Amino acid sequence: MHGRIVRIATDALDANDTIAGANRADFDEHGTAVVNFMSAPGAGKTSLLERALEVLQHELSIGVLEGDVQGRFDADRISRFHVAVTQLDTDPGFGGECHLDANMVRSALSEIPLDGLELLVIENVGNLVCPGEFKIREHARVLVASVTEGEDEPLKHPLMFRACDLVLVNKVDLLTHLDYDLEEFLANLDEVHPDVPYILTSARTGMGIEAWCEWLRARAGAKRVRERARAHA
Amino acid sequence: MHGRIVRIATDALDANDTIAGANRADFDEHGTAVVNFMSAPGAGKTSLLERALEVLQHELSIGVLEGDVQGRFDADRISRFHVAVTQLDTDPGFGGECHLDANMVRSALSEIPLDGLELLVIENVGNLVCPGEFKIREHARVLVASVTEGEDEPLKHPLMFRACDLVLVNKVDLLTHLDYDLEEFLANLDEVHPDVPYILTSARTGMGIEAWCEWLRARAGAKRVRERARAHA
Repeated sequence: MHGRIVRIATDALDANDTIAGANRADFDEHGTAVVNFMSAPGAGKTSLLERALEVLQHELSIGVLEGDVQGRFDADRISRFHVAVTQLDTDPGFGGECHLDANMVRSALSEIPLDGLELLVIENVGNLVCPGEFKIREHARVLVASVTEGEDEPLKHPLMFRACDLVLVNKVDLLTHLDYDLEEFLANLDEVHPDVPYILTSARTGMGIEAWCEWLRARAGAKRVRERARAHA
Repeated sequence: MHGRIVRIATDALDANDTIAGANRADFDEHGTAVVNFMSAPGAGKTSLLERALEVLQHELSIGVLEGDVQGRFDADRISRFHVAVTQLDTDPGFGGECHLDANMVRSALSEIPLDGLELLVIENVGNLVCPGEFKIREHARVLVASVTEGEDEPLKHPLMFRACDLVLVNKVDLLTHLDYDLEEFLANLDEVHPDVPYILTSARTGMGIEAWCEWLRARAGAKRVRERARAHA
């Protein structure tokens, strides 16, 4: 059965790639920078997004697509900001899909006002395996790794750590209370994905939030440049 | 494509159930109590297992099956104990399977000396979605929830929290350093799975470890009773 699952999954991944291509074309046509935001459950994605939105909500036009197995807990948290929030439950899958795939994102696109958005953040399902396997064709992937997880997470989940463009090392305010070797984590990260940029963050104390916002600003910048060019044409 | 994945997955789950039945027959024939040990990545499964093995390694005959996407980091940690450790990498799946299924466990059974074991602990892949969907036909499921994750995890991952027989609420030594409402977590747990037993644990301070060991002892007890009866027959 194992081999059978693998073969089917390969077909599914091919189909996923085709749809992902269509998504990417839509993102690019509207000039919306799309960030796929991923982590294990409870690593602090929503809190880090809240802190960024506090700073950026009146500065950029931002959309958030919230992927969850069930419920709209995160979407409710985000909806107090001046952003366009869309909830996507993966529950129709068998017992709940463990990731967002291109088709799920595609099904939500009709509800997302892409044309007005400079930045779309897709908060993926909390999971360190499958979200790395299904392409959405986002422009960048951000992975949150909490220091309350083990130092060996990059080695245990190399696909996820290799596929990302930025790592937010979160909950660093807890470091003094943990038997956690940050240098060991960073060495493991470097082994799996040499030179990937990272930011030490704490959603609680605000550490690293300005750098995280600056990174998001740079991602959204492309659309501004394009529109400015169009206005002057 | 989404509907197609669901249909295929249903077939796969049917096949999985058949193999799971064969596993269960083997477990029961040897009188080995089998515990499926699950959590999000980094919640502390391996540390809690280490603490239990310190106490139980010379008291019970124990086997550990370590499921990981890649590597044998956890198996190496466990191998210093007087237990039979088997490593099962899910990597042959597409980019790494995110759970153990019945067939993966079956493929490892030839390397596990079931006949001599009173207790087999299967440490599943760190994931709060898929391990709840694939039956192994273990005798009991234990879920580790770390207080560094959110209070709303039971509501976000109801399948996992509903399917378990015991919840270890881990890393409680960090409670004083967190904005975490334990009562809220327990209320959410009760909403999803009323009256499920739970133990507050800290692998670091040892809190709750004796209760965790006692629970494992009770699970392994069945085989002892059977063998004692056989010896006196």
